[in-house]
Amino acid sequence: MKINKQQIENHNRNQLKSHKDSFGVFSDQLTAKKIDLDTVLYRLNQFQVAIPSWALGAGGTRFGRFHIGGEPGRLKEKIEDVGLLHALNRSSGAISLHIPWDIPDDPEAVKRQAEELDIRFDAVNSNTFQDQKNQKHSYKFGSLCHTDRIVREQAVDHNLDVIRYGKELGSKAITIWLADGSNFPGQQNFRKALMRTLGSLEKIYRELPDDWKMLIEYKPYEPNFYSMVIPDWGTSHLLASKLGAQAKTLVDLGHHLPNTNIEQIVATLMMEGKLGGFHFNDSKYGDDDLTTGCIKPYQLFLIFNELVYESDSDSTGFSGIDWMIDASHNSKDPLEDLLQSVEAILSAYAKALLVDQAKLEEAREVNDVTEAQELLLDAFRTDVRPLLRESRIRSQAAAEPLKLYRDLQVRNTLIDERGTSTVATGL
Amino acid sequence: MKINKQQIENHNRNQLKSHKDSFGVFSDQLTAKKIDLDTVLYRLNQFQVAIPSWALGAGGTRFGRFHIGGEPGRLKEKIEDVGLLHALNRSSGAISLHIPWDIPDDPEAVKRQAEELDIRFDAVNSNTFQDQKNQKHSYKFGSLCHTDRIVREQAVDHNLDVIRYGKELGSKAITIWLADGSNFPGQQNFRKALMRTLGSLEKIYRELPDDWKMLIEYKPYEPNFYSMVIPDWGTSHLLASKLGAQAKTLVDLGHHLPNTNIEQIVATLMMEGKLGGFHFNDSKYGDDDLTTGCIKPYQLFLIFNELVYESDSDSTGFSGIDWMIDASHNSKDPLEDLLQSVEAILSAYAKALLVDQAKLEEAREVNDVTEAQELLLDAFRTDVRPLLRESRIRSQAAAEPLKLYRDLQVRNTLIDERGTSTVATGL
Amino acid sequence: MKINKQQIENHNRNQLKSHKDSFGVFSDQLTAKKIDLDTVLYRLNQFQVAIPSWALGAGGTRFGRFHIGGEPGRLKEKIEDVGLLHALNRSSGAISLHIPWDIPDDPEAVKRQAEELDIRFDAVNSNTFQDQKNQKHSYKFGSLCHTDRIVREQAVDHNLDVIRYGKELGSKAITIWLADGSNFPGQQNFRKALMRTLGSLEKIYRELPDDWKMLIEYKPYEPNFYSMVIPDWGTSHLLASKLGAQAKTLVDLGHHLPNTNIEQIVATLMMEGKLGGFHFNDSKYGDDDLTTGCIKPYQLFLIFNELVYESDSDSTGFSGIDWMIDASHNSKDPLEDLLQSVEAILSAYAKALLVDQAKLEEAREVNDVTEAQELLLDAFRTDVRPLLRESRIRSQAAAEPLKLYRDLQVRNTLIDERGTSTVATGL
Amino acid sequence: MKINKQQIENHNRNQLKSHKDSFGVFSDQLTAKKIDLDTVLYRLNQFQVAIPSWALGAGGTRFGRFHIGGEPGRLKEKIEDVGLLHALNRSSGAISLHIPWDIPDDPEAVKRQAEELDIRFDAVNSNTFQDQKNQKHSYKFGSLCHTDRIVREQAVDHNLDVIRYGKELGSKAITIWLADGSNFPGQQNFRKALMRTLGSLEKIYRELPDDWKMLIEYKPYEPNFYSMVIPDWGTSHLLASKLGAQAKTLVDLGHHLPNTNIEQIVATLMMEGKLGGFHFNDSKYGDDDLTTGCIKPYQLFLIFNELVYESDSDSTGFSGIDWMIDASHNSKDPLEDLLQSVEAILSAYAKALLVDQAKLEEAREVNDVTEAQELLLDAFRTDVRPLLRESRIRSQAAAEPLKLYRDLQVRNTLIDERGTSTVATGL
Repeated sequence: MKINKQQIENHNRNQLKSHKDSFGVFSDQLTAKKIDLDTVLYRLNQFQVAIPSWALGAGGTRFGRFHIGGEPGRLKEKIEDVGLLHALNRSSGAISLHIPWDIPDDPEAVKRQAEELDIRFDAVNSNTFQDQKNQKHSYKFGSLCHTDRIVREQAVDHNLDVIRYGKELGSKAITIWLADGSNFPGQQNFRKALMRTLGSLEKIYRELPDDWKMLIEYKPYEPNFYSMVIPDWGTSHLLASKLGAQAKTLVDLGHHLPNTNIEQIVATLMMEGKLGGFHFNDSKYGDDDLTTGCIKPYQLFLIFNELVYESDSDSTGFSGIDWMIDASHNSKDPLEDLLQSVEAILSAYAKALLVDQAKLEEAREVNDVTEAQELLLDAFRTDVRPLLRESRIRSQAAAEPLKLYRDLQVRNTLIDERGTSTVATGL
Repeated sequence: MKINKQQIENHNRNQLKSHKDSFGVFSDQLTAKKIDLDTVLYRLNQFQVAIPSWALGAGGTRFGRFHIGGEPGRLKEKIEDVGLLHALNRSSGAISLHIPWDIPDDPEAVKRQAEELDIRFDAVNSNTFQDQKNQKHSYKFGSLCHTDRIVREQAVDHNLDVIRYGKELGSKAITIWLADGSNFPGQQNFRKALMRTLGSLEKIYRELPDDWKMLIEYKPYEPNFYSMVIPDWGTSHLLASKLGAQAKTLVDLGHHLPNTNIEQIVATLMMEGKLGGFHFNDSKYGDDDLTTGCIKPYQLFLIFNELVYESDSDSTGFSGIDWMIDASHNSKDPLEDLLQSVEAILSAYAKALLVDQAKLEEAREVNDVTEAQELLLDAFRTDVRPLLRESRIRSQAAAEPLKLYRDLQVRNTLIDERGTSTVATGL
Repeated sequence: MKINKQQIENHNRNQLKSHKDSFGVFSDQLTAKKIDLDTVLYRLNQFQVAIPSWALGAGGTRFGRFHIGGEPGRLKEKIEDVGLLHALNRSSGAISLHIPWDIPDDPEAVKRQAEELDIRFDAVNSNTFQDQKNQKHSYKFGSLCHTDRIVREQAVDHNLDVIRYGKELGSKAITIWLADGSNFPGQQNFRKALMRTLGSLEKIYRELPDDWKMLIEYKPYEPNFYSMVIPDWGTSHLLASKLGAQAKTLVDLGHHLPNTNIEQIVATLMMEGKLGGFHFNDSKYGDDDLTTGCIKPYQLFLIFNELVYESDSDSTGFSGIDWMIDASHNSKDPLEDLLQSVEAILSAYAKALLVDQAKLEEAREVNDVTEAQELLLDAFRTDVRPLLRESRIRSQAAAEPLKLYRDLQVRNTLIDERGTSTVATGL
Repeated sequence: MKINKQQIENHNRNQLKSHKDSFGVFSDQLTAKKIDLDTVLYRLNQFQVAIPSWALGAGGTRFGRFHIGGEPGRLKEKIEDVGLLHALNRSSGAISLHIPWDIPDDPEAVKRQAEELDIRFDAVNSNTFQDQKNQKHSYKFGSLCHTDRIVREQAVDHNLDVIRYGKELGSKAITIWLADGSNFPGQQNFRKALMRTLGSLEKIYRELPDDWKMLIEYKPYEPNFYSMVIPDWGTSHLLASKLGAQAKTLVDLGHHLPNTNIEQIVATLMMEGKLGGFHFNDSKYGDDDLTTGCIKPYQLFLIFNELVYESDSDSTGFSGIDWMIDASHNSKDPLEDLLQSVEAILSAYAKALLVDQAKLEEAREVNDVTEAQELLLDAFRTDVRPLLRESRIRSQAAAEPLKLYRDLQVRNTLIDERGTSTVATGL
């Protein structure tokens, strides 16, 4: 299924009247605050969040998975789904692939399809947390950290394959999330596991194209429940520092211990020039992989406030970061969920763009705590929906993507096209 | 496979010499502390922990499952496995079944097999967290709490079926763990969900045989990640109080928010006569379902200290509690894991039996904090392995169950018998 | 210091122009959604949050306290400070006193002063977590739960004194926060401590005037770090149920373990008719006592969504709840902090009033999760500042309380009046 | 008060008979496991834990402090108290001072007193988390990170003073714990705060004597409740790496977010040669500062298992670490509490020395998870009290330090000598 320009235009025409009123007031507010509307709109427009290929089907938990219909069974259909999202919001112009789930049979055809839909190939992801059919050695006890050299080599080779697939499609980064770790005290020699991991990463890094980044994820627990080889940003950063300038840390919002101040980690990594990418999602307990912004929207805003601060002072900092969603959809239509996530991300970004950074810095310098807090709250409390609508209308996206998605009955069409029994690869 | 008396006796003969020395010293220590050895041994001997049928195969996470060989594919084989454990330690003389995974085709044959192995049927467990093949209505949005009466009725009927199966086998309790909840703020009307759950439970309770208990589990999150209908002991207790005397709360050690004082919950529930059962496991982060005692052995001891306190003052309190393991085995041979769990449970229990409760009460009354703490530490620091060995030798179990399990190469035999590709039902 | 009508009017006149524009658009939005503006404004106007007498000076931590100037040294000055806040926002028309910190020497004079400032006396608070000078028995090892009857009686008597003081001033509730607990495993007999606490509470309850409530707080830790006698809502509710209809649970937002779903607890307690009161504050880690809404504004909104739901369906539910702030101000001017807190509370309440409860219920019934979530987000994303300004202007409060506070240089005036060395009683 | 040799000898004579029996069996067990008893005893004997001068009086919380009698009011008395502890267990031969609480008036006299009691001066601690009387600039908004250069310089100067005092007494390290941070989102520019801290630390580092270490503590929260400038090991390590070889990270067991795997952090830091020191205590919720080993004795053992592993493979690693207790005693006699802490630390160390590291490594290499876990459990379950007693008897300490402390009624003597109203400096 595709959404055509006419459908978008019809939809926007219906929204225009009420939009104009609210945007007028909003625009006046911006003028009053001496914020340049065009700059803000330009930056919003530039911002593209990659959709992970594994988030287009129903996600599950270890207790089971509840099916939805119309899941994309093949890579072609996955790209088609991202195309739908991008047509609706013009902010999802990238896809992040997972190997071996998404090995392209015909890379050229895949590239053509993506190009037509204006979709880029973002970071490619390797998978050494599951055993694939016909795989020689099991990752049950680790992959890049495994005690057995043979297993480590297999995992290294897999990562090199992933890079090769990525090169064919035009990706510029590989994301390595390691499930390696241990379930029981005593099971693993922490030091050796970390050194072996470093050794394996060095082998992959050596083959990294010069214009690529290696994004190293961290996670404190799950699927291992006593220790993970790369449990925190400190360990990821330690590895990235030893590897070289192309290795950076990737922050997944759900990969932290309770109460972690994530925005501070983001700031520290940016200060070191070592923030490489983001996995957006939200959570209340652990790696819950819920819709971005559904639990802690203020935290999301605070994170973007750090990102914007950096991008203001150093234009390269911001452009060097890969933005991806990483979520799992247990109870919602994944496409609706992704539209909501992108909206929440843009909303946080837009609000951060409204923060008066100069005044904020001034208040901080004299320790006017109340004023500093008020400046953030002022931006956060602003209703930026008129702004996001305006941005979308200008870029020929739908004013209200979710509304149009429902009006067009996209899911039903997908079910008609694909049936109810296809199961998308993923978790 | 079965382990015969001769194998046990041979094993014990080899352990006897070294055992006698260490037990001699241990026994002297007890005498010095005026603890009656026979009472302690009697109570240890009486203690039986039910093995859950779903913990006999390899467990998994949402990221995958790593196979082991020789998994029990049918109920008969599961009972056989529990028989192996019980033959080794004489402390696992019960099995807890899960419906529909363990529906007995021929109940009489099943009972005979269990009887031969000296195994009781403990609480039966219902399952409304997964959709079964050919199931009419989905539990995607809840079961006993569902907004749709039809779905609730289906879930109630399933629970009544479970009771029926349990009655046939001689169970005396049904354990209800509800995965019902919501993933997103707004999704669920908390009050209505709870009232609907109560209504459904009342229907089940009404059909409960007079000599049965209904055990109501609680859990703060997973598989739902915003709210669970029965998130904490307070809610479970609220429901159990409204239902009646046969309804009680079941405590699963892994079902708590970070830092919860579980032993205090146990004490409060016992004070109210509402502690119905236990699911043993251990965890560092969430419901990690690790081997009991592998992370927080002192907490396990403190819990048993509360249990023993109650059982001393009120003999019925203790006997009314169902003891079950509930774990998931991602990286170990499940049978080895279960042997370790039972050992850890008995170890905590044995240490709690050594606490000088009279002196402890005395110290507490005068707020001699140091002394009270020392009295617990004294018991905890005692090496009770000679005591557990003695208890096992006297009941014709293996002095060192895990050692004998390995010496006999049980897993290899099971693989020979069952092959490497059977997959046990479970998570 | 007092703020007079003229100062308010001048301030409001200056805000009027820009306010009218933004309120116009806001009001149109409400009309479009068929929400009755007058009802919303009426309910906002009715809402009064009590200011705790102990939050008017600089708060501290165990590591120290940093002084501010102009702290209120006497009860008269504390009431004066609340008068300032209430003059500014007309939403702080109540004060919550702490005995023995605030024993009124001349109750009649105190009442007159409060009446002039249009301030009510909300719940009175007892204090058995500190030893007062010349106190006979120490609370080092507990108060209402103490092993020694004599100490318990002293603590009961103190609570009866507090009720007596409260009656003189017109309070209608006593809040009991018990610091009782233990620091070390073994120290306390959980059951006896709870039973003794119940016994002490019964003695206090017996003397409770018929039109009073007893509010029972819970808290998982601090100042005791192993166990607290009333650690969670379940225990508070257990006690309140045993005591009778006038005993209810008080929810302090900071008194929960990490990741607790507080809005669900609120819903459950309201369902049982047992929610008695609220202590507002915010926190990232524990009982941080930060400005309300400064960390988790969405959670605050979700809590109010539960409160509004109940108040819609049962008018008595809402009116029976006592609203109080309980915060500690380590780095800000306490009065500014309290103005921010009240603003955040009203903001959350106002947004909750905008939720389309009928549509929400509809979406929930058919498990349209996306729609249910969107309905909450729609309300939360709305900028309600025009509404709050309008509400204030109508009730002759300052359109922008914090701005006027700063413009009038209130703190400097207080320092001139009171000096820089007075230390307010509190933590 | 002093404890003399005769008192120790009398005590030990009384314990000897029962000790000999239990030690005999223990010693046989060691022989059976081919562990060299003399090596173990030698290492235990070498191990000395520094006592913090601020832990000798009653600790408090922000809610209050409950007095004990006989607190040491002056430095001389504090050293005397440490002398008592060291006489009792011969494992507390060091004191860690806190400036300005412990400024020595007459360094030579202080050194003589310490020498007589066989007490070393361990790391000195600076204090920039409180304002001292007559201090020019306040640390309310930070010290080494402060926005104002003047305040930073004051804080740097204070640290240089601390080093000077330490040099006079023979200390070889300065511990810097920074309370710097922020309470509210927006308050602090994370990057600038960290860069300013680095700048200040560089100034201190430049003046560090060549044979000194700078120990940099980290802590996620308290006394600041939104962010801390050095919240985690990663940040501490980042600073220490930039500073140079003498700068290392100090691990305080209570300074972690819930569920942190501390033993893994210890391993990683040791791998990098950057573990500088330890603050021992225990906790259930946050920085509870409870007696070491009272909540999580197994975690303490696992930490020592990492330490021992390193010390086996690299003798310098172990000797380069400073061991200190850092606790706060709200409900116990501080001296009893410290005796318990040292006992728990030695117990964990002794058990770690019993781990068969060679077999453990072997099991790990082949991923025999059960066996690896069993090897740790075997050591942990061993009752090492006979070993600790033997070690003490050989070094002329008391076989049972706490028993002798109570038999000699030390606290009463201290109260007689010092009265009941002295208040020791500290928290």
